Amino acid sequence: MNPEPDVTAALARFLVDSRWQDVPEAVRHAGRRTLLNCLGTALGGCRDSAIEKALAVLREFSGTPAATIIGHRMRLDTLSAAFINAASANVFDFDDTHMPTVIHPAAPVVPAVLACAERARVTGEQLLHALILGVEVECRVGNSVTPYHYSHGWHITSTCGVIGAAAAVGKLLGLDVQQMIWALGLGANQACGLVESLGSMAKSVSVGNAARNGVVAALLAQRGFTAAPRTIEGPLGFAHVMGQAPDLAAIDCGLGADWESARNTYKPYPCGIVLHPAIDAFLELRARHGLAAESIERVTVRGNPLLRQRTDRRNPRSGREAQVSLQHTAGICFLCGLAGIRQYSDSCAAEPVVQAFGAKVEIEDDPAVSAQAAVVTVRTREGRTFSLEVSHALGSLERPMSDAQIEAKVRDLAAFGNSTCDVEQLIDVVWRVDRLDDASTLMKFAVPQAA
Amino acid sequence: MNPEPDVTAALARFLVDSRWQDVPEAVRHAGRRTLLNCLGTALGGCRDSAIEKALAVLREFSGTPAATIIGHRMRLDTLSAAFINAASANVFDFDDTHMPTVIHPAAPVVPAVLACAERARVTGEQLLHALILGVEVECRVGNSVTPYHYSHGWHITSTCGVIGAAAAVGKLLGLDVQQMIWALGLGANQACGLVESLGSMAKSVSVGNAARNGVVAALLAQRGFTAAPRTIEGPLGFAHVMGQAPDLAAIDCGLGADWESARNTYKPYPCGIVLHPAIDAFLELRARHGLAAESIERVTVRGNPLLRQRTDRRNPRSGREAQVSLQHTAGICFLCGLAGIRQYSDSCAAEPVVQAFGAKVEIEDDPAVSAQAAVVTVRTREGRTFSLEVSHALGSLERPMSDAQIEAKVRDLAAFGNSTCDVEQLIDVVWRVDRLDDASTLMKFAVPQAA
Repeated sequence: MNPEPDVTAALARFLVDSRWQDVPEAVRHAGRRTLLNCLGTALGGCRDSAIEKALAVLREFSGTPAATIIGHRMRLDTLSAAFINAASANVFDFDDTHMPTVIHPAAPVVPAVLACAERARVTGEQLLHALILGVEVECRVGNSVTPYHYSHGWHITSTCGVIGAAAAVGKLLGLDVQQMIWALGLGANQACGLVESLGSMAKSVSVGNAARNGVVAALLAQRGFTAAPRTIEGPLGFAHVMGQAPDLAAIDCGLGADWESARNTYKPYPCGIVLHPAIDAFLELRARHGLAAESIERVTVRGNPLLRQRTDRRNPRSGREAQVSLQHTAGICFLCGLAGIRQYSDSCAAEPVVQAFGAKVEIEDDPAVSAQAAVVTVRTREGRTFSLEVSHALGSLERPMSDAQIEAKVRDLAAFGNSTCDVEQLIDVVWRVDRLDDASTLMKFAVPQAA
Repeated sequence: MNPEPDVTAALARFLVDSRWQDVPEAVRHAGRRTLLNCLGTALGGCRDSAIEKALAVLREFSGTPAATIIGHRMRLDTLSAAFINAASANVFDFDDTHMPTVIHPAAPVVPAVLACAERARVTGEQLLHALILGVEVECRVGNSVTPYHYSHGWHITSTCGVIGAAAAVGKLLGLDVQQMIWALGLGANQACGLVESLGSMAKSVSVGNAARNGVVAALLAQRGFTAAPRTIEGPLGFAHVMGQAPDLAAIDCGLGADWESARNTYKPYPCGIVLHPAIDAFLELRARHGLAAESIERVTVRGNPLLRQRTDRRNPRSGREAQVSLQHTAGICFLCGLAGIRQYSDSCAAEPVVQAFGAKVEIEDDPAVSAQAAVVTVRTREGRTFSLEVSHALGSLERPMSDAQIEAKVRDLAAFGNSTCDVEQLIDVVWRVDRLDDASTLMKFAVPQAA
């Protein structure tokens, strides 16, 4: 009868049936890394002006302050906390990236389950399990509509994120299969977010909503609030409306055996991922040859034409523009030896010495170079040249960040966000989260310490 | 430079510049009718099980109970009240209909401005003005993406409603042009809702969100929370992502001179609009000839093929299915002489006598009959035949409901919803709403009276 597989029901059954012992240790550890990286980006983003403005609006309407706002002393109700923490985690686009879809999986899912863990007690094992399953659902739904969905204009982190958040919270609540079908449908019915909004604060609203509305979807479903049985795959449902010839088999094929979290990566640098191979080369050349910025006459970057298209941007006018500027990026790497969150601020973008360095940068198109690679040549005033080819950047699937590197990133972000939280305790507890009796313990270390 | 007109900015300038004295009396009166009809449908819908379930979830997270829940003694925070009242107003699809787009304009816009009128004092004139402008923006944006948008699977009331609600609340807050551009952009970025969800409770979530998130959009914009300058018309914005070759000129052409509220209609019967001409004929034939149901041998309805496609449904299994059943509709008209909200309940759909009557109904396709018309012939057991052609149903643009008929509808809905509100006072105050010093006075009459 049905021309399409019943993928909404298949996802619901998988979510309900999945047991913790079915989740391989490698997947569990990927979940811990996702959690840690997300807490770090939220600590770094929590004082961004978009977040401060959203807090100022939402606190007026908040109910019982049951949930932690990461990096703040203020607490809000469960739904508002999910919104704010998701927006914080994603505001710099420094969060995790699922390579096949370019979804940032954690931002909608992690804050949703964290806020719910403060509402009704769950173990750390339950929390991590729900988080892993939410990411799995989110990325699989994303796979089914990729690449059309994003290129057509959908902010895939927001649109698929609300479905993942509904799935994760549904698991945490112990929904049955029928309720889970409703939760997924209620999530899909709330999918929104336009690529046009990127570069403005508006992006944070759809990401925040994805977490918040995922929680609402699961709570409504728990009460018997219905949705269409095939909201994802139906003829007027998510995949057909927001995809083109969607690959529905990608949603349920290999569920529970082939895990999408194996395709989730973590950025070492808070800028466009296409810049990362060049950054590795800049930093390595500087360190290896002790290059001082003023000794450099010219920096030539040979890369895929995509690199020029996306990042040929002299004198960016803001931190956001700097994040997609090769000239700015070369400047900070050779001047500071760093490409961290401070180097992509508005004030750093406006530095005359950084802007001046940009004039030394030359881009050479070479279709033979993959978008994951870059070949950098530095010529000094004395006429010496040094060259380095990077095939895969740090943070790629081929060369993932180590646990220690993610820890260092989290420490840096916590300091940048001025949260004064106990970041060492936080890191420690995340690595053993699935042994916690009460998952909400985690949140004690994600807020400013008492004086 | 820009290939498309700057319609987001044009709408923002119109909203900011519009003065009450620029609004013709006919448009003002259309606004009062929209308000009254919306309050009526919310009073009728406010105890539907979808609403009760949503209330049970949202009350846990509600902040200061600043706003009225229509038909209930409970109050919730501004955002939650906007959500619930919008869902109530639309739950039976008995609300107003903008004919060119099939948007139900009031449900997202009216509850948003009503909730805000209880948050910060505004006059009735300001409320009605904001309501009219919100409906205008919502319907014009809808015009630009019609008919593709709905037929592709977007629940247009939800998707365009959030933009209309943002516009209306933005006007109420007195936003400047830049803030209004952000408010419209933040609204557009939150546009969601799938046609797949119709027939399930999920529909009420995207309609509720449209009102709630419109309020959030305007409040964020007031704080300087930014959005892309061309979120509606940009290459990856609302109109191109959710429309096909959108007619952007439809958004700003004739703004302030040609009003969409002139194309808003009110349903006398809570069922599919394609059934309405047949209902008029059924009721008129019954009354004119004193026809008893048991004396009828056959009812033949000659109509556009659309009528059969949409409504040929024997023995509907629920009130919702009965709303799109010609057989059920003929039964209730000839058996009860009524096609009101009670006649489309689950219990009425299950009545054996109503189901038995359905066997007497015959549908004849005739492409020469317009979808707005029907030709009904009744043959009695004694062999007499009576025939009537209805060209335009009551409630159509050509034959609108009178003010008195809308009043009667509101009284019936208030009684059905068992709100025990003072409906006569409510009706009275709506007709003079623009003379109220404090618009929130209205809400006193939309809740149960003290014992």
